[in-house]
Order: sequence, then structure tokens, then C-alpha cells
Amino acid sequence: MRTRPLKVALLGCGVVGSEVARIMTAHAEDLAARIGAPVELAGVAVRRPGKVREGIDPALITTDPTALVKRGDIDVVVEVIGGIEPARGLITEAFAHGASVVSANKALLAKDGAALHAAAARYGRDLYYEAAVAGAIPLIRPLRESLAGDKVNRVLGIVNGTTNFILDKMDTTGAGYQEALDEATALGYAEADPTADVEGFDAAAKAAILAGIAFHTRVRLDDVYREGMTEVTSADFASARAMGCTIKLLAICERAADGGSVTARVHPAMLPLSHPLASVREAYNAVFVESEAAGRLMFYGPGAGGSPTASAVLGDLVAVCRNKLGEATGPGESAYTNLPVSAMGEVVTRYHISLDVADKPGVLAQVATVFAEHGVSIDTVRQQSRPDFQDTASDGGEASLVVVTHRAPDAALSGTVEALRGLDTVRGVASIMRVEGE
Amino acid sequence: MRTRPLKVALLGCGVVGSEVARIMTAHAEDLAARIGAPVELAGVAVRRPGKVREGIDPALITTDPTALVKRGDIDVVVEVIGGIEPARGLITEAFAHGASVVSANKALLAKDGAALHAAAARYGRDLYYEAAVAGAIPLIRPLRESLAGDKVNRVLGIVNGTTNFILDKMDTTGAGYQEALDEATALGYAEADPTADVEGFDAAAKAAILAGIAFHTRVRLDDVYREGMTEVTSADFASARAMGCTIKLLAICERAADGGSVTARVHPAMLPLSHPLASVREAYNAVFVESEAAGRLMFYGPGAGGSPTASAVLGDLVAVCRNKLGEATGPGESAYTNLPVSAMGEVVTRYHISLDVADKPGVLAQVATVFAEHGVSIDTVRQQSRPDFQDTASDGGEASLVVVTHRAPDAALSGTVEALRGLDTVRGVASIMRVEGE
Repeated sequence: MRTRPLKVALLGCGVVGSEVARIMTAHAEDLAARIGAPVELAGVAVRRPGKVREGIDPALITTDPTALVKRGDIDVVVEVIGGIEPARGLITEAFAHGASVVSANKALLAKDGAALHAAAARYGRDLYYEAAVAGAIPLIRPLRESLAGDKVNRVLGIVNGTTNFILDKMDTTGAGYQEALDEATALGYAEADPTADVEGFDAAAKAAILAGIAFHTRVRLDDVYREGMTEVTSADFASARAMGCTIKLLAICERAADGGSVTARVHPAMLPLSHPLASVREAYNAVFVESEAAGRLMFYGPGAGGSPTASAVLGDLVAVCRNKLGEATGPGESAYTNLPVSAMGEVVTRYHISLDVADKPGVLAQVATVFAEHGVSIDTVRQQSRPDFQDTASDGGEASLVVVTHRAPDAALSGTVEALRGLDTVRGVASIMRVEGE
Repeated sequence: MRTRPLKVALLGCGVVGSEVARIMTAHAEDLAARIGAPVELAGVAVRRPGKVREGIDPALITTDPTALVKRGDIDVVVEVIGGIEPARGLITEAFAHGASVVSANKALLAKDGAALHAAAARYGRDLYYEAAVAGAIPLIRPLRESLAGDKVNRVLGIVNGTTNFILDKMDTTGAGYQEALDEATALGYAEADPTADVEGFDAAAKAAILAGIAFHTRVRLDDVYREGMTEVTSADFASARAMGCTIKLLAICERAADGGSVTARVHPAMLPLSHPLASVREAYNAVFVESEAAGRLMFYGPGAGGSPTASAVLGDLVAVCRNKLGEATGPGESAYTNLPVSAMGEVVTRYHISLDVADKPGVLAQVATVFAEHGVSIDTVRQQSRPDFQDTASDGGEASLVVVTHRAPDAALSGTVEALRGLDTVRGVASIMRVEGE
């Protein structure tokens, strides 16, 4: 075993960074045995140098990350700052000054993955980022390496723990969205400003990364269709249960049936209870992969948190250090298929539509005609009088009409809904939700 | 991209081998793009040369595998023959003659993994075998690479699809063992001689491989404790359900609490319905991993079959070809911890014991005394009169006594059961089953 240590610079020492540093110290001998050389923490860039950081030599602390990555003796830079800048500039400098990079930065990878991969290739360095998607769950390595001889057709994932916790609470306790969010906040699962999670931005970044790797093409954050889950109601869960479903916020990456394009999207969807993803509870994450030869695979685990994310970072650190020692690099970006990313309108899916309609003869025929005019075929209709909405108007009471469609392009489905809103017998569209995983 | 192709020799052209050959042809361009050079099937060793093999050039067929691996121009040998010999000798010859090896041979890896790894290291070749455990499920690469910076404490797996199918049928339809086995045979899930599956030999080989990789130590097939599942009854499933459990044949690899040793075992066990492995249905496989930093992970997918196994073989083929091009090798055997493997008696577990006892006062006290004498603490006892077993003997009828213990060493638990058999009030031990996953 080589005795001269490999030098690691840590950018960021928050929840994840401090755990990376702790494990590097606590398991130094194991890491050395697995890498074939000792690894040494050579510097830690932080914003608040005064903070006490247990187990980290104060002499390693610096507030100048640029100077750290430019030192020239750093073998691997671990970037756990997050955000676009200064992370992007620091990673590029790291490559230029001899270091490979392990990053947990989903936002940056989703936005500028191609440029970063190109920089890594130009300098002959590694860029690994297992921790950027679904925390500790090995996902990028299996997709990029284990399935390298297979053809992935679909990736369906619960990749945001906060929203899964909220939806699970709504499902199991009957709580409303706000109540479940409050509980998530109190337990530390949701941040003070939960926008990135509940509006699906976090999941969309992960969807972009997953789609790119799964389909060997470039998918940028802007290519991902996104709907949040703040409008999911208890009534939606009741409707889902009536269909034998639950509701999950899904990241869905698909190859079109003709193979000529791909799509990536994030939105809440009804999912059959028999689907393996339906039983993913609390803040857990899971990703379901459908490939031509392997069939249906699922990867499950904690999607966030200091320790799980650190586990993923350290797995990458071991791989990158081994590559350094062997003077090799691991697999880089694979974007050779260069497939176009289609818009949401072209995605083929199913809608569950709940309408408030006038309770009088002929309404169903009118509604069915609108579907037919848009080329959307109806799977089931459930019509129910609602005596609680009985009013004194001459056209009688109100009824609820639940329509589940067959598969159709999203543009045709959303066009149908728009046209339904224009019918005078349709008082309102109570909810629309896609049905997936069948 | 390099234009000179990498040459692959295929040993065996059965269900898996023919699918490997098919995908190599059908996806030649994708494989070339992902590897960085084309791959070419350079020879296929078979036992029956006369058989028609669609899509394979008859000129490539040979009945002399030794000559094929000794040709000297082969870059990668794919071994899908199975069994110990001639596979072992052929793999060693392949290493000596310049080739790396991708194998799906669990029996050989479990028996002689250490010697094969040593041979690979001596010649500077790769030995990859993702397909040997749980078919298409990426498992060896995640354990060996993704978790390389973490400490795995426990691996709990459903790694045999045949037995999972049988147990799932027994659970869901109430069928007995023989009836469920017959259905598995009719559907092609069980072989004509199901011994390797139902007696746990297949799962034990996989447990040895998993334990070795998870704990960075050597675990041989002989080190694995093994019990089959042929004696599981409908009554056991009824008992399991009463406890909120199902029954699975599990491969369990554990690090002892003091970290100083490891164990590996295969046996049927009661598993709480809330455990992620409990919902693994039909012939699917899944492996649950508990590690220090990552926490609880699960990997799920098809554990057997031509296409899934070929997917795993091809993933390895891409990795090994990439290593060849980069003149590097991937991670070899990691057995540096050199931990002893403890015997079954030292495993700490819980028992669910069902006893037929005389229905008279004092029996419970007598039974409880035996547990106490062996240092085994009782969790719950359920006692039930069985009027159907009422007889005319002077000591009255028969009762059934179900005892669930707290955790204790297996030796103390089995010693307790032996002593119970010696009590004259105990008419028989109806069933014993370990309880896991809590």
C-alpha cells in the first residue's frame, strides 16, 4: 500500500461536510485499505471560521476556497456547498489545478452538468456525484455502470423526502396539506421556506440528472416539466383510494414509444397500491427503473440527511481516489444518443378528472362529447348526486362526475379539460391528476 | 473512438448465453459508444454444436472451450456455464492468456472466490460477477463501490426466486408446500429437481458472496449455516399472520455486535409485514442492507431469467472492456478485515416456538422454567385449548402453546427446544421458526 496520503479538500462543512470529515477520521484505516493509500483532509473551506467544529484541526479551516482548490497538491475536492456560484467556479478551478471532484450539488449538475463534464474531460479528471440524487441510494452508479449494457426505457422516482413525508401523512392520517406540512417542518423534514421541495424544483433537478444518465443524452433543468403538490387535497386522496391508488410526487423520465425522443417531468400522480413505489413511506426515497433486459428494478433508501449523503460522497471519494492511484478516470458523461427532449404535451398519460356538474339529464352526454372531440377515450365514469349541494336554482342540484381516461397525449387531455371548463353545465373542475405506474 | 474491436469469448450458450449474444448484436452500436470501442463476439463454446442458434454465426461455434480461452487474442471471457469444473480451469486459463473474466457462476465464486481473485490479481485482470447474485439487481457494484466509504452491518436478502414464489403462493392462497411447489414447477420457476433451491443451497452460495463483499472478509460456502424451507406449513403461515408477519427464506449476513466476527446463514424466518422485504412478491428478489452512515437501503428486481441475468453480464462486460481500454483494472477482492466467521450457535436471534402440550395446570410454569434455565427470556406466550385433540387419557386434552422469545444466542434457543422435547407434558414441537427484521 502506498504510504503517501491522497489529499482531500472539503468545500463546505455543514450537515453533510462535517459528517464527511468525521467519517474520514473515524474510518481512516478502512478507507486506506479500500483505496490502497491513506486519505488526508488537507483543508476545509467554510463561511464561518469561528464556529467550533469537533474533530477538525482548526489549522485546516480556511475562508478562502479558491486558494484551497488552487494549491496544486489537492487530489480530490469534495464540494458540498450547494448552489450555482461559487461552486461552479471552484469545481472548474479544481479540475484546472489537478484535482478530481466529488459533488453533492444537484442544482448545479442539473443546470450545467454538460459544461462541468466537458471541463473534467478536458483536464482528465473525474466528476462523481452519487450524492446529488436520492442521498445514500446507489443510483447513478447502477444506472451508469450496472445497466451500461441494457436499454433503460423509464425511470419513475420518489426523489424528494419532504414531499413524500407530507403526502404519506395526508394519506395515512387524513390530514390536509397545511397540517402535514406543519408536522414536517416541526420534525425538521421541511425547511422554513419549503418552496424548493413542495413546488417540485428539487425533484426536477434530480429528474434532469437521472434522465440524462438513463438515456445517454443531455437533459437540462429547463427541459423538465414541473408541477408542485401544494394543491393536493384530502378529497384527492379519497378519490385515489376509490381507485385502489395512493398519491405520490413522482419524477418520471421516459423514452417515447418510437425511441426518438425522451421526456422528463415532475408532478403529483395517482399510483396503484400494488406498485412497489406505493409502499415507500415517510421521508424515504425510491427509484423504479424499467429496462429492456433487466426488467423492473427498484432502489430504496433514505434520500437526504447528513449521514446518508456523506455515505454517498465517501463511496465516490473511494472510487475517485482509486482512479487517481491507477492513473485512470471513471466513466464520464455519456450523451452520445443526443435525443431531443419533448414537451409535456407529447407525453402519453392518463387523467383522473373530478368535475362538479349540474345534476340534470344530458350532462354526461355533453361531457362525453367533449372527450370524443379531443380524441380522448374514457376508461370509467362515476356519477354521484350531491344532496349537500342542492340549491334552489331551477336547474336542480349538483352532481359530481369522476372521469378516468385511457392513455392519450397530455395536450389532448389538457385541451379536453379546458373545453369542459367552458360548458355551462360544468360548475367547476374540482381536481385533475395524472394516473401512473400501471 | 477506437475502431479495432475488443474480442469476447462466450463460454456457454444456454438461456443466459444466447441472450448475451443476442443483445451484443442488437445493441452493438450502443455498446461501442458506451465502451469507446466496438465489441465483437470472437467465439462461442457449446456442448451441442448441432443445435441451431439464431443470430450466431456458425463459424464462431466451438466445442473446445480450452482452445478458445487460450487463443491469446481474447480480451474478455464471459463464463455462463455454471458449476465448478470445467468453469474454474477455464477462468484461470483465460487470466493466464490475457483475458479478463465476467462470470455468473455463484457456486464457483462461493467455493473458490479467493483463489480466482488471487489469479486475476496475479495476471492483472478483472473478475466481475454481478450476475452471480440476484440476477439483474445491481448489488455487488453498489456494495463494493457505492458503499466503499461506509460500514455495512447487516445484509438481509430474498435471493432465491423459486422459494419466494412458493412461499408467496402459500401465504396468499393458503396452499401447502407441495401444491405451491407443483405450481412453481408448472410455471417453470422450479426445476425438475428443486433441491438446490428449496434446501437453500443456492441462497447459501449467494450469502457467502454477499457476506464476503459486505464485510471485506472471506466467507466460504461451508461457513454458511443453511436450513431449507420444505417443512414450512400452512399452520406456520397462520402463526406468522397472528404476529403480523409473513414467512420468507432469508439470506442473512451480520456483523457481531462487538464487530469482532461475522455470520452468514440461510433459513426461513418470520418477518413483520411492515418490513420492506415482506412485500416482495412472486419470484422477485430483494436485498436489504443496513449500514452505519447510509442507513437502510433496499435493492429490488428479478433475480433470475435469461434477459435479467444477461443485463447484469453486459453491465460487467462494458465495465471490463472500459478497464481494458484504459489499461486499468477495477476493484479486486477486498478481504483485509480478515474477520472470523462465527458458528450458528453464536447468532443472536428470536424464536417462535409452537408446542403441543397437555392441557393441565402447571404446564406453563414447567415450560417457562426450561426457558429460564437456558437464560432465554420470553416475550409473549399464547395458550389455547384444542378441543379437537381432546382424548380419553386421564390427563385430559391437549393445548397448543405458542412462545415468542426475546433475542438470545441461537445455541441457547436450540438448547431450550431440546430440553422442552424432554418434558413429559410436551407432546411435540409443532414448529420452530426464527423471527427477523425487527
